[in-house]
Amino acid sequence: MAIKQRLYDLLEGGNRSTASQRCIDALLGLLIVANVLAVALESVPRIDAIYGLYFKAFDLISLAIFCGEYVIRLWVCTEHPPLKRLSAGEARWRYARSPFMIIDLVAILPSLVVSVIGVDLRFLRIFRLLRLLKLARYSPTIITLGRVLYEERRALFAVVIIMFGLLMLSASVMTIIEGAAQPEAFGSIPAAMWWALATLSTVGYGDVVPITALGRIFGGLVTLLGVAMYALPIAIIAAGFTNESRRRDFVITWGMVARVPLFANLEPVVLAKIGGLLRSKSVPAGYEIAHKGQPADCMYFIVGGEVVVDIDDHRVTLEEGDFFGEIALLHDTQRRAHAYALTECRLMLLMKSDFHGLMETEPKLRREIAEVAAERLSKGDWSHGDIPDEELQNRPLEGE
Amino acid sequence: MAIKQRLYDLLEGGNRSTASQRCIDALLGLLIVANVLAVALESVPRIDAIYGLYFKAFDLISLAIFCGEYVIRLWVCTEHPPLKRLSAGEARWRYARSPFMIIDLVAILPSLVVSVIGVDLRFLRIFRLLRLLKLARYSPTIITLGRVLYEERRALFAVVIIMFGLLMLSASVMTIIEGAAQPEAFGSIPAAMWWALATLSTVGYGDVVPITALGRIFGGLVTLLGVAMYALPIAIIAAGFTNESRRRDFVITWGMVARVPLFANLEPVVLAKIGGLLRSKSVPAGYEIAHKGQPADCMYFIVGGEVVVDIDDHRVTLEEGDFFGEIALLHDTQRRAHAYALTECRLMLLMKSDFHGLMETEPKLRREIAEVAAERLSKGDWSHGDIPDEELQNRPLEGE
Amino acid sequence: MAIKQRLYDLLEGGNRSTASQRCIDALLGLLIVANVLAVALESVPRIDAIYGLYFKAFDLISLAIFCGEYVIRLWVCTEHPPLKRLSAGEARWRYARSPFMIIDLVAILPSLVVSVIGVDLRFLRIFRLLRLLKLARYSPTIITLGRVLYEERRALFAVVIIMFGLLMLSASVMTIIEGAAQPEAFGSIPAAMWWALATLSTVGYGDVVPITALGRIFGGLVTLLGVAMYALPIAIIAAGFTNESRRRDFVITWGMVARVPLFANLEPVVLAKIGGLLRSKSVPAGYEIAHKGQPADCMYFIVGGEVVVDIDDHRVTLEEGDFFGEIALLHDTQRRAHAYALTECRLMLLMKSDFHGLMETEPKLRREIAEVAAERLSKGDWSHGDIPDEELQNRPLEGE
Amino acid sequence: MAIKQRLYDLLEGGNRSTASQRCIDALLGLLIVANVLAVALESVPRIDAIYGLYFKAFDLISLAIFCGEYVIRLWVCTEHPPLKRLSAGEARWRYARSPFMIIDLVAILPSLVVSVIGVDLRFLRIFRLLRLLKLARYSPTIITLGRVLYEERRALFAVVIIMFGLLMLSASVMTIIEGAAQPEAFGSIPAAMWWALATLSTVGYGDVVPITALGRIFGGLVTLLGVAMYALPIAIIAAGFTNESRRRDFVITWGMVARVPLFANLEPVVLAKIGGLLRSKSVPAGYEIAHKGQPADCMYFIVGGEVVVDIDDHRVTLEEGDFFGEIALLHDTQRRAHAYALTECRLMLLMKSDFHGLMETEPKLRREIAEVAAERLSKGDWSHGDIPDEELQNRPLEGE
Repeated sequence: MAIKQRLYDLLEGGNRSTASQRCIDALLGLLIVANVLAVALESVPRIDAIYGLYFKAFDLISLAIFCGEYVIRLWVCTEHPPLKRLSAGEARWRYARSPFMIIDLVAILPSLVVSVIGVDLRFLRIFRLLRLLKLARYSPTIITLGRVLYEERRALFAVVIIMFGLLMLSASVMTIIEGAAQPEAFGSIPAAMWWALATLSTVGYGDVVPITALGRIFGGLVTLLGVAMYALPIAIIAAGFTNESRRRDFVITWGMVARVPLFANLEPVVLAKIGGLLRSKSVPAGYEIAHKGQPADCMYFIVGGEVVVDIDDHRVTLEEGDFFGEIALLHDTQRRAHAYALTECRLMLLMKSDFHGLMETEPKLRREIAEVAAERLSKGDWSHGDIPDEELQNRPLEGE
Repeated sequence: MAIKQRLYDLLEGGNRSTASQRCIDALLGLLIVANVLAVALESVPRIDAIYGLYFKAFDLISLAIFCGEYVIRLWVCTEHPPLKRLSAGEARWRYARSPFMIIDLVAILPSLVVSVIGVDLRFLRIFRLLRLLKLARYSPTIITLGRVLYEERRALFAVVIIMFGLLMLSASVMTIIEGAAQPEAFGSIPAAMWWALATLSTVGYGDVVPITALGRIFGGLVTLLGVAMYALPIAIIAAGFTNESRRRDFVITWGMVARVPLFANLEPVVLAKIGGLLRSKSVPAGYEIAHKGQPADCMYFIVGGEVVVDIDDHRVTLEEGDFFGEIALLHDTQRRAHAYALTECRLMLLMKSDFHGLMETEPKLRREIAEVAAERLSKGDWSHGDIPDEELQNRPLEGE
Repeated sequence: MAIKQRLYDLLEGGNRSTASQRCIDALLGLLIVANVLAVALESVPRIDAIYGLYFKAFDLISLAIFCGEYVIRLWVCTEHPPLKRLSAGEARWRYARSPFMIIDLVAILPSLVVSVIGVDLRFLRIFRLLRLLKLARYSPTIITLGRVLYEERRALFAVVIIMFGLLMLSASVMTIIEGAAQPEAFGSIPAAMWWALATLSTVGYGDVVPITALGRIFGGLVTLLGVAMYALPIAIIAAGFTNESRRRDFVITWGMVARVPLFANLEPVVLAKIGGLLRSKSVPAGYEIAHKGQPADCMYFIVGGEVVVDIDDHRVTLEEGDFFGEIALLHDTQRRAHAYALTECRLMLLMKSDFHGLMETEPKLRREIAEVAAERLSKGDWSHGDIPDEELQNRPLEGE
Repeated sequence: MAIKQRLYDLLEGGNRSTASQRCIDALLGLLIVANVLAVALESVPRIDAIYGLYFKAFDLISLAIFCGEYVIRLWVCTEHPPLKRLSAGEARWRYARSPFMIIDLVAILPSLVVSVIGVDLRFLRIFRLLRLLKLARYSPTIITLGRVLYEERRALFAVVIIMFGLLMLSASVMTIIEGAAQPEAFGSIPAAMWWALATLSTVGYGDVVPITALGRIFGGLVTLLGVAMYALPIAIIAAGFTNESRRRDFVITWGMVARVPLFANLEPVVLAKIGGLLRSKSVPAGYEIAHKGQPADCMYFIVGGEVVVDIDDHRVTLEEGDFFGEIALLHDTQRRAHAYALTECRLMLLMKSDFHGLMETEPKLRREIAEVAAERLSKGDWSHGDIPDEELQNRPLEGE
C-alpha cells in the first residue's frame, strides 16, 4: 500500500509543488512535445528513410510509457480523497470517466489499435497529434480559457453567423462584379469565397485579386469589413476575461456578511467591523482548502458553493452561510480535517490574529463559535450532517 | 382556438426551451443555412447544369415554407400576451411592424416577387442571401452586439473619420513618392488607394508594392499605421462589451434600497439587513418575468425600467420603486399573473426563504406588504393603475 | 445685433440639436468630404483633363465658403457666454487661439497662400487634405479618443520602443541567415527591414520571403512576434477606454457626500439617505449645465472640477463642495442663470421630486439651503465670489 | 564629495524632472537610438565602403561614453539613500546586481570584449543592438508591461500550447490533402508548417497557397482559426491591463479604514467621516514618497506594502496599519525624513486641510497622533523599530 500512496502523491497528489512532482510533470510534458515533433520529422521522406526505425522505436516506447501512466493513474486513484470511501471498482470506473482520463485514453487508443492491428497508414499518424491534448493536464488555465469561451459561446455564435453572412455577401457580390473579367477566380460563389476568406481574415495571399475598377472599390470595402470581423471576437473574449478576473477577486459586501447566520444577531456596528476584517478568496472545484495536519492560519465562511470536510471516519458537506476551520484556531492547533471545494467556491477568510482580536472584544460571538466547535468536536454534529455517497458520486471531479 | 394556441407556443412562445420548440427552431435554422449554401452551389455552372432543377425545386419549397411560417406567425400573434387585448386586425398590423417580422418579410419578398413575375436574373439570386437575416431571431445576442455597436457609434464614427484621413494621406503621399516609378499603380490617388487599403488593413495582397527606397520607408510607416488602425475599433468595442456586462450584473447599493417607497420609513439597520438579502437581475425588454401558474420563489422590486403585469381581465404597468410577486409568497401559492418587462429592467429579488424570515422579524413591514397585497387582491388597485392601450401601442415589442 | 446672435446660434450655439444647426453642420461636413474626394479625383490625369476647370472652380468656391465660415465664427464669437464680458478684440484674439479655430485656419491657409501667389504645384494639393481636420469639430468623441491615447502615451511609447527593438532584431538576424542566399533582399539591415516590417505588421506582401530552411524557421518565429506586436497596443488602448468609461459614470461614495460642507453637520443616517437620492453625471469642459430660462428639474453638487455661473451682470465660479441650481427648485421657477463647466466636472444631481421630499423631512437642511439661496438672490453673494477676468482668460475653451 | 552628489542627482536622483536631468536622459536616449541606426546603416555595403571609418569612430566614442556612464553610476551609487548605510564596496556590489545595471553591462560588454580582442566578425555587430535595452531605464511603463505579461504568463503559456496544437494540426492535415498536388510545399509537415504559420498569423505571403478544392476549403477554415489565434492573446493581455489599472486606483473601503490601529477605538460615525476624507494612491517599489526638506501637504496611512523612513541617523520600516508624515503637519513644517516604498504600496492620504479640520473636531484623535509624533521626535521610537541591514539587503532595488 505504501508504494500505491507514494505513486499517487507523485502522479496526482495535492498542489504539484514538490520537487519530485514537478520533475515527473516536466518529464511527461517533454515526452509529449517530443512525440509531436517526432511525428513532424518522420513526415519528411529524407529523414524517415534514414532514421525511420528510430522513430518507430521512439513511438513504441512512448506508447508504452503513456499506457503505463494510464494504468498507474487508474490503479492509484483509489487514494484520491473524494473517491476513498467508494469500492475500488466503483472508484476506478468513476475516475476513468473524468475528463483528463478520457483525454489520456483518446491520446493513446488510436496508436494502440494501429499497433495491435498492424496497419500503418500515413494519415493515421495524425492521431498521434492527439497526445498534445494531454498537455491540458499541466496547464490549469486552459480550463479557464475554455470556460470563458464557453460562457461567451452565444456571442461567439452570433459572430460566426455575422462572419458567415459577410463571407457569403462578399463572395456573391464579387462574382457579379468580377465574374466576367476573371471567370476562373470569380466565376462562382464557392470560387470567390477563397478570395473573400483570404481578404476578410486579412491573410491576403494575393494569388487572386480583383482587377476591374469596380472590383477594387468593392474589394477595398471588404478589407475594411475584415478589420471589423477581427474587432468583434477579440472584444467579446476580452470582455469575458475581464469579467472572469473581476469575478475572481470579488468585493465583500455588507450583504455577504449579513447573510452569515452566525452574525445574524450582531449589532450593525460589530457587523461593519467584522466586514472590515474579512478577506475574499475564490477557489475552483476540487481545490484543497485545508490539509489535515497543516498549521491553521485562518477560519473560513462560505459565501457561495459547497465544501466537503473529510474527518477521520465521516464526511460532511457545508454550504452558503456555513463556516469551518474554527476549531484549530480556538485550540491553536493543526487542521483536524481535509477540506475540499466540491463546486467552485467563494470564501471569506478571517485571519488568525484578527480572529483572536475579535474573540476578545465580542464575548458573545466567541461563545457561539466555541459552542458550535464543541458540538462538532464531541458529536461530530455539523450543520448539514453527512452527505450521502450517491449524491457525491454525481458531483464533478477536479477539472470538470 | 386550441391549434392556434399550440402553434403560438411552438413558434413564438415563452423561453424556447421545450423539446418541440427547440426542434422547430433547429429545423428552421438548418433550412436557412441550407438555402444559403444552395445559392452558393447553384452559382457553379457545372453543378447548376446537372442539378439545376433540384435547386429550383428546393428554392420553391423553401420559399413556400418561409411564406407559410410568416403567415402562421401573423395568424397566431393575437395570442401574444402584450397584444391580447387589441382587436385581431390591430394586433396583426402592430406585430407585422415588429423588427423580426420585417426581417422575415424582407427575406422572402424579393424571391416571391421574382417567382411571381417570372424573371430570373442571375444577380437577383443574391436577394436569397437575405434569408440569413432570419437567423437573428435565433441568436438573441446579435441584438446585444448591435446595441454595443450602437452605443459606441460616435466613437466608431470618429474611427471611420480617422481611417478615411489615414487612407487619403497614405495614398496622396505615395502618389508623389512612387508615382514616377510605377505610374500605373501609384499614378493617381484613387489608384494608390488600392495599395493603401490593402496595407492599412494588413491584408497585403502584394500585387502592388512600392519599389523605390523612399517608397519603402514610407510604406513601412503605413504598415505600422495599420496596426494602430486595428487597435482603435477593437479597443472601443471591447470597452463597450466590458461596460455592457458590468451593467448587467449590477451591484445593489444602499441608494437602490433606500429609494423603494415601501422601505422609506424603516430604520437604517433594517434597511441594511434587507439590502443584504436582495439579489440583482437585469432583464431585456419583452422578457417574461413571471408566468401565470408557475410556483413562486421570490418577489421583485423594480430598480429601473417598467414592468407590465397582466391579470385576468386587466393590465397594470409598474415602474421604479414598485414591487410585485408578493401575493404568491404571502399565500404560498402559484403566480396569479403574467409579468413582462416593458423596457429593459433592473430588478431586485427577495427570495422566498429570506422573505419569510424578514416577515417574521419585521412585523411592520409584513403589515404594509400584506395591506398592499390585500388591496391588490380585492380591488385590483395597483400603485399606478391601468395603462392606457394607446400608450402600450407605442411601446417596443420584444427585440426592438 | 440680431443677425449676429442668430448666426452665433446657427454656427456655434448650444447643444447643436435644433434643425437648422444640424442642417448647417451636415452641409459643412459634406462640403469637407466633397473637397477631399475632389482632390482624389483631380489626381487622375484622364479626369483632370476633362473636368479640370470644374475642380478648380469647386476648390475656389469651397475655399471662399470656408474663409467666410472662419470670418463669421470670429465675428460672432463675442456672443459666446464665457467671452461675453471681454472687449471684442480680446475676445476674438482669445477665440482665434482656441484649438478648433487654429484647425480651421490650418485647413484654409495653405490653399489661400497658393491661390494668392498663383503657384500650383502638384504636391501642394495634399494640403487640401488638411480640410479633413475640420471634421473634428463635428465629432466630439475624437477628443475622447485623443485623451485616451494621451493618457496611455507612456505605455504606447514603451510599445514603440519594443516594436523598434523587435524590428531591428528581426532584420539583423535575417541578414546573417538569409543574406548570402538573397543578397538583394536581405543583404543589409535596411533592406531586410522591409521584409521584417511587412511580417511583423502581418501585412505580408510576399514580394520578399526567406527561402533557406533556417530563414523560414526564423521567419516563422517572426510571424508569431507579429501577433504579439498587435496584442500590446490593442490591449493598452482597450484598457484605457474601459477606464475612461468607468471614470465617466462614477459611483457616488459615502466620502463624496460627506465632503459637501452643506451636509457636514447632518446625522449619518440622513447622510446615507441623501447619498441614496443623488445621481452622478460627468461633463466635459465647456459643457452647458444649465441654460437660463429652461425649466429646472434638479440641483447640482460639485464633486470635482469647476463650474462658472453667469448671472445677469456678474459671474461666479464654483468648485468642489459647492452647490447650485437650488433657487429654481425652491421657488419652482425657471433657471435664472447660465452654468458652464469650466473644467471637466463630476456632478451629483438631486432630482426635483427627491429634493422636495428631502426638504420636508429635513427642516434643518431646508433652512440652510433656503438661507444660502436668499443670500444669493439678494446680494449676489456666492460662496466663492467673482472670478477675476484674468484668471478666466487663462482657462481653456471648449475642446481644449 | 560635492561632485559625487551632483553627479548622483544628475544621473540617478529623484523624480527625473529637473531640466538638467531631463537633458541628460534625452542625450543618452538619443545616443542609444543613434547607435542602433548606425548598426543598420553600417550593414549597407555601399555606405560602409564610404563612411566605414566614421562609423567605427562613432562606435568607439559611444562605447567610451557608455562605459564612462556605467563607471560613474557605480561610483555615485553610494549616494542612493537605501544604500547609504552600507560600506562603499557592499553598496557597489549590491547596486551592480540591480536589473538596470546588469542591462547596462550586457549592453556594453560584448562590444568591449570585441574591441579588446580585436576580432570584428559581422554577426558580432548584432550585440550592439543590445544597447536598445538601455532604453528600458527611461520608460518605467516597460516594467508595468512586463509585470502584466508576467502575471498572465500561465494564460499566455496556455495560448502558446493551443497555437502549437493548431499549427501542427493545420500542417499535418494539409500534407495529407495537398501533399500529392504540391509535393515541394506540402510534402512533409515541416514544409507545410511554413504555409500554416503564414496563414494562422494572417501574414499570408502568398508564395505557397493550396490549389486543390479540398485544400482551399481547409485553408479557408485555417484562416478563420487565425482570427481566433489573435483573439486569445489580445483578450488576455487586455484583461490584464484593465485589472492592473483597476488595482492602481483602488477604492477606499470601510475595511481599510477600520484596519488602521489608530482608528480602532473611534465611533463608527467618526470612522465614516475619516473614510470620506482619505484619498488613495498606489506607488511602485522604490518610489520616493516624501523628500526631506519638501513642504508637507498630507500624512500617509499604509494599506498594503512596506515603507522605509530614513531619518538622519537611523532607518525604520513601516507596514500595513502604520502611518507617517504627521509630524510635519502637526508642526506645520517641512518633511523631516526621506520615505521610500520598499515594496509596491497602497497608501491612504489625509490632506493637510482635512487633517487640521479633523484634529479640531476629534480632540481624542489629535491627542493620540500628537503622542505618537512626540515619541517619534524625542526617542526616535517608531512602531516597528529599526530594520536590520541584512533584511534590507535582500529587498529588491528600484525596478526589480
